[in-house]
Amino acid sequence: MAEPASARLHGMLRALDAVGATPAGGVHRPACTAADGAARDLLQTWMRDAGMQVAIDPIGNMAGLLELAGPGAPVVMAGSHLDSQPQGGRFDGALGVAAACAAALDLQDQVRAGLLRPCCNVAVVNWTNEEGARFQPSLLGSGVHAGTLGLQEALACADGDGVCIGAALRDIGYAGTGVLPHASAYVELHVECGRVLDDAGERLGVFTRYWGAAKQRVAFIGEAAHTGPTPMPLRRDALLGAARLVCAVRAMADAAPGLLHSSVGRIEVRPNSPNVVPAEAVTFVELRSPEPGVLTWAEAELARQVAVAAEGAGLRADAGPVDRRPAGAFDAGLAAMAEAEAAAMGYALRRLDTVAGHDAVSMAGLCPSVMLVVPSVGGLCHNPAEFTHPADVALGAELLTRLLGRLCRDGIAA
Amino acid sequence: MAEPASARLHGMLRALDAVGATPAGGVHRPACTAADGAARDLLQTWMRDAGMQVAIDPIGNMAGLLELAGPGAPVVMAGSHLDSQPQGGRFDGALGVAAACAAALDLQDQVRAGLLRPCCNVAVVNWTNEEGARFQPSLLGSGVHAGTLGLQEALACADGDGVCIGAALRDIGYAGTGVLPHASAYVELHVECGRVLDDAGERLGVFTRYWGAAKQRVAFIGEAAHTGPTPMPLRRDALLGAARLVCAVRAMADAAPGLLHSSVGRIEVRPNSPNVVPAEAVTFVELRSPEPGVLTWAEAELARQVAVAAEGAGLRADAGPVDRRPAGAFDAGLAAMAEAEAAAMGYALRRLDTVAGHDAVSMAGLCPSVMLVVPSVGGLCHNPAEFTHPADVALGAELLTRLLGRLCRDGIAA
Repeated sequence: MAEPASARLHGMLRALDAVGATPAGGVHRPACTAADGAARDLLQTWMRDAGMQVAIDPIGNMAGLLELAGPGAPVVMAGSHLDSQPQGGRFDGALGVAAACAAALDLQDQVRAGLLRPCCNVAVVNWTNEEGARFQPSLLGSGVHAGTLGLQEALACADGDGVCIGAALRDIGYAGTGVLPHASAYVELHVECGRVLDDAGERLGVFTRYWGAAKQRVAFIGEAAHTGPTPMPLRRDALLGAARLVCAVRAMADAAPGLLHSSVGRIEVRPNSPNVVPAEAVTFVELRSPEPGVLTWAEAELARQVAVAAEGAGLRADAGPVDRRPAGAFDAGLAAMAEAEAAAMGYALRRLDTVAGHDAVSMAGLCPSVMLVVPSVGGLCHNPAEFTHPADVALGAELLTRLLGRLCRDGIAA
Repeated sequence: MAEPASARLHGMLRALDAVGATPAGGVHRPACTAADGAARDLLQTWMRDAGMQVAIDPIGNMAGLLELAGPGAPVVMAGSHLDSQPQGGRFDGALGVAAACAAALDLQDQVRAGLLRPCCNVAVVNWTNEEGARFQPSLLGSGVHAGTLGLQEALACADGDGVCIGAALRDIGYAGTGVLPHASAYVELHVECGRVLDDAGERLGVFTRYWGAAKQRVAFIGEAAHTGPTPMPLRRDALLGAARLVCAVRAMADAAPGLLHSSVGRIEVRPNSPNVVPAEAVTFVELRSPEPGVLTWAEAELARQVAVAAEGAGLRADAGPVDRRPAGAFDAGLAAMAEAEAAAMGYALRRLDTVAGHDAVSMAGLCPSVMLVVPSVGGLCHNPAEFTHPADVALGAELLTRLLGRLCRDGIAA
């Protein structure tokens, strides 16, 4: 049954590629922008055309329920996110949503052809603001659904221009009032966003563990002054403090190779004029580790480095957590099922950690969850050149369809 | 004659304060914005009301010529700039333009009253984009007038949004075709933008020397990647390179106390998302010194530090000069005349260096030029809280009027 799903999926992905397409070959579709709205509209059309019951909740999560087994049956959910990084890649998120939609349609075909006797329904989901690029934190929509983030707190999150996500959702018509179906199992197909599979020449993987993450917004407050005459010892240069922190955050990861990933990906400087000593510099720091003890150490060390950087440049520092997720494991039973299905297809399934956060991490707190993985060429991700070979896309989609089909046939506890 | 000029000046400054006023008490009037256009319109009205011949040149410099002595007489020019830093102060630049305009009107009154027999005409000038905040380099309009910057090169300078100054000038109606009068002497009144006068409790100064400056745009080019899974050793983090350069640039100044001022006031990061390894970081570096040898050393050291920062983070660096001005001295004869006039008012004139660039530095290459200085409270400048006491404003304006009057009466060579 791979062929029909693969052809459908190919068409859906090409359609999504065009929404927010950039000259560099990627997409620019940050959460709740017009482009995100257009991608959502496409998905909603596909859902309604397939006879799905569409629900949009107050944080903009969208689900399409296909009642294969009839009202009240347990729900197997699959999906990912349609939002992208600024100037991001085409596969990150979009693959998982489109593949879930194509798989649901394929299972519907199987049921109609009498090839599948389902005891579960299937739901396709698109989570709001997975990326955490326009609005922080990431995994925002799935976090609200899973109860790890309050709805009101989430709705109040503002982008760099001060626009709240609540207002942005209304602008694109996706501030809903619905309730998403309760999932009894969750499966997400995603590109690896790393290079293990590509380097090893392997084509399918399963994320069995996820790293913990601590994300902080660290603001340094100094004083605007003329960059010429102001005596050097009197300057309170917020960018200098931020720069020292960027260097220190990198040094922390270098001191714990393989156990700590760290980064400062965003900085906002005010007034950001070549000849004004910066009055304010806001950095966005990320720390990630598979080891809870290492992450605890890193957070303490970050606090120490913030204080050192602030004191050294005569600044006030204001640091606060944006997000904090403990490390954990996906459902072992679902991973074993996925391995059995892959074996039936003639493939070994490489077990991997995910360092990146994914909506399945939110869902893992609600129900048995697992992630299926296909290679990213060169490990590229959050980059317009991000690419996964069509054959690998098709292989991943086939594995997703098989796993969802098995869950629908045998039930969640099987 | 101080009182009439002082009253006029007070009214002009209050009118300019309102153009682009910010809640913090400063002004936001970057070059060639609508607010800059509105300030220019005010000035042009004052010039025309006084019977001045207004000329606007292709880079938007404005001059109003008052023919006190008649056509063809030598021209004594005074002025400064109406553009401000983003969220800048009220006095920086605006004081010099308004005081020049008020002084010209006062001299006109003196001529009409038979108190002054002039052998020179007076011109009031407003230079385009002195600040170098929206468009680099600074001293752009006066540089074109003085021939140190080509007109076409200047017109092509673009702001952070890619808007060229040529287009921005057309938008506000100040892309002229006129020619400014040729000045035989140039005098500029300015706030100190430093704290020497304020700390010493002195009220009037004269800039006799100006520091040299070397300004560079340094871009680091890395590669966008996911901040999570991308292995640390494979990251090519452009912000990390920029941060290391910011630290190194500060260390250079710390190694040469009093001889080198350095700063990085602006940084542009792309894509600037919390979870994308930055692909590009552009820094704007300034080096300033009174000693040519120190500036030469600093430029070489900057080049070395750029290479070190780039290599250490796996980046490509692209550094280029935005501006380069040698250190120099203002006209000693004009400074001596200013001292004599100040003495007649009962004040000593503190001789100062200007570390900051000013339009008078451009003009010093064309004709004898000098700058008169009043205190900035606390040395604040490029800050909305920038303040000069009204009594000091009046004192500076009186000194400017006296010096211009003496030049008009005795001629430039006196």
